[in-house]
Amino acid sequence: MIQRLRGFRDMYPEAMRARRIVFNKICEIALEFGFHEIDTPSVEHLDLFRVKSGEEIIKQTFSFVDKGGREITLIPELTPSVARMIASRKDLVKPVKWFSFPKMWRYEEPQSGRLREFYQFNADIFGVENISADAEVLALAMEILDSLGLKNKYVMRVSDRVLMENILKSLGIKRVENAFYLIDRKDKIPEDEFYESLKKISSEDSAQQLVEILSLKGEPDKVLSKLKDTERKNTLLELRDLVKAYSKEFILDLSVVRGLAYYTGIVFEAHDAKGELRAILGGGRYDNVVELFGGQHTPAVGFGMGDAVLEILMKREGVWPEEKIEVDFFVAIIPGYRKEAIKIATLLRKKGFHVDIELRERSISKQLKYANRINAKYTVIVGDEIKKNRVTVKNMETGEQRLVNIDDIDAIIQP
Amino acid sequence: MIQRLRGFRDMYPEAMRARRIVFNKICEIALEFGFHEIDTPSVEHLDLFRVKSGEEIIKQTFSFVDKGGREITLIPELTPSVARMIASRKDLVKPVKWFSFPKMWRYEEPQSGRLREFYQFNADIFGVENISADAEVLALAMEILDSLGLKNKYVMRVSDRVLMENILKSLGIKRVENAFYLIDRKDKIPEDEFYESLKKISSEDSAQQLVEILSLKGEPDKVLSKLKDTERKNTLLELRDLVKAYSKEFILDLSVVRGLAYYTGIVFEAHDAKGELRAILGGGRYDNVVELFGGQHTPAVGFGMGDAVLEILMKREGVWPEEKIEVDFFVAIIPGYRKEAIKIATLLRKKGFHVDIELRERSISKQLKYANRINAKYTVIVGDEIKKNRVTVKNMETGEQRLVNIDDIDAIIQP
Repeated sequence: MIQRLRGFRDMYPEAMRARRIVFNKICEIALEFGFHEIDTPSVEHLDLFRVKSGEEIIKQTFSFVDKGGREITLIPELTPSVARMIASRKDLVKPVKWFSFPKMWRYEEPQSGRLREFYQFNADIFGVENISADAEVLALAMEILDSLGLKNKYVMRVSDRVLMENILKSLGIKRVENAFYLIDRKDKIPEDEFYESLKKISSEDSAQQLVEILSLKGEPDKVLSKLKDTERKNTLLELRDLVKAYSKEFILDLSVVRGLAYYTGIVFEAHDAKGELRAILGGGRYDNVVELFGGQHTPAVGFGMGDAVLEILMKREGVWPEEKIEVDFFVAIIPGYRKEAIKIATLLRKKGFHVDIELRERSISKQLKYANRINAKYTVIVGDEIKKNRVTVKNMETGEQRLVNIDDIDAIIQP
Repeated sequence: MIQRLRGFRDMYPEAMRARRIVFNKICEIALEFGFHEIDTPSVEHLDLFRVKSGEEIIKQTFSFVDKGGREITLIPELTPSVARMIASRKDLVKPVKWFSFPKMWRYEEPQSGRLREFYQFNADIFGVENISADAEVLALAMEILDSLGLKNKYVMRVSDRVLMENILKSLGIKRVENAFYLIDRKDKIPEDEFYESLKKISSEDSAQQLVEILSLKGEPDKVLSKLKDTERKNTLLELRDLVKAYSKEFILDLSVVRGLAYYTGIVFEAHDAKGELRAILGGGRYDNVVELFGGQHTPAVGFGMGDAVLEILMKREGVWPEEKIEVDFFVAIIPGYRKEAIKIATLLRKKGFHVDIELRERSISKQLKYANRINAKYTVIVGDEIKKNRVTVKNMETGEQRLVNIDDIDAIIQP
């Protein structure tokens, strides 16, 4: 027996229905925010990912040489494809606000919240220099989580690459990239180890100061009041005010870096409030990426949210939709009335109801058992009475059963 | 500049919105027919496809050896994955009716209606031996096409593997598989070539008779009246009657084979009525496949429909949705009123409207131009009047403009 691959999922109808409810909700919020759906190839030239992310990400790809000798890969992230799409259409009227919810693949060791195949919701705004786009994207991310029942169950942590770069420079730390890499790993390694590594690229005094700064987390004005930098202070307070106009709040947390090196401004991550899980979502501003793919200079800000951590968190918080299938009607058939039953089912389907029908030739009691199994709200039994245009309708919850004229049948429930 | 791969598509918002309308409609019809959505991995062990389809299909796969040395492939079809899912859950209460609409990949030369990456809608019923399941699946396929505006624009062609096998045997043709392979290619090769190839596996007399039988196309009873076989006659007439109860019709066309060797009964294909395009969809009964994957004997019938031919046909027939984006509201901002504008946008979004908002700081005339570009139905201008709880609402179609109290704003249009 051939099994599925490790880190991949089979989604049976019960689980899929719950997931579909969640996915639809997420996309609906994106539409409410004036974002438009796009779709990109799931396979791209491997070079597309080398441009932006370097060899590091290549190690984690499902990449291969195709039958035509091309070095190609399953997409491990969306940004390069989207940036390519932006770069190759000079006629696009900016700003553009795009979202999509594709599958992605990463060749990593599967663990809780990390799969080899996953879905990732992506939303990006291209063509807006100023902070109002960052606010719009942050508000979208938070509204998605709130609308999924996660209000107060997560923390949105925001930082700023420009501010951090200024801080690093003022501390005399010149290897900024290395510092970012290190800070990004801070929560994953022991405190000592972090401190020792830091001292390799900075003085002991600076290292101490930096550790202190990285521990600052909280309301933006409180955190900012402890810093000397004034250049970015106003921008960050403006961001806070704009986000507040959306009725949302974030904390400033300078330890947030977002590993990938291409961010150029605001970066953010949402984490479960208990701090038990990997990041729920992450994103930021990346003003130089579209140029990398041959496009005009195009400021950009966006985020990605995988489905794995989100599902774990929603289940933990009891807000994941019930995993069950259901239909509005099951049409049961007394022997000899199949064609009449099909007509009744067709009638109900035309009205938009979800309708299953007996396809075998089981006894009525077995058909009712089956109707229960698929969570039919009502069972319509088609038999002799159909000659008088009537069918028996059984409410599967209450057990109540009555003869109904087929013209009145759709009044029983709304689709 | 790195291009996308040949045979792959970038889907910009305008095209994607049309596609989403079509995809949603298809899934909604499946739900109305009592089918439930599932999801399968996009990558599987290559062996999974060897089991069912043999080496032939392997040539057309995007397959490779992963970093762990596994021979894996992007899925070229869905049936093996679904059969594996059925086989590995002994507790499933039958029948089950499943659908999905995943991406698939085939390494073939791209041409009109054939891409290397495409979406394919799939629907299958497992666990029903009798012909009522074939009828349900056929009716679903036809209802999908009808509901997409293709009524009378396509022909559903049905044949029967058992009937054809009986005919081949009665003609003394023993290499049944070869004959099916040949018949499947009939429309793709010149008549002479077909006839000559046929004579290699049959007598001249039988070849002539077979050519005649293959030319029989039309109403099931007319076609059947010209055949000796009686064993399958009743089954096929029953199928016709059941499908008729769904208000649908098909023609019997014995030249339909469906290349893949695993079909065991009814096979069918829908073609555009003008006969210009590749098949729109195809399917049939495959009662032995689940066993191949280690499951119990499980009768099955289903079909697959790619998105490429469907799109070409719908565009040709003028029923493809208009390719344009739109939003309900664009919120324009007079300088100094950004936060108030965000609050108005948030209010409208909470009510379910699709709302974009000015993210730059453009002049009102430029903002209105942009609102037009994104096909906003209304533009809400937030300025001084917000102090009196009022905004200017402009109907973008009629140009009509009036001051509206923000409490009345959502009465203007329904979401």
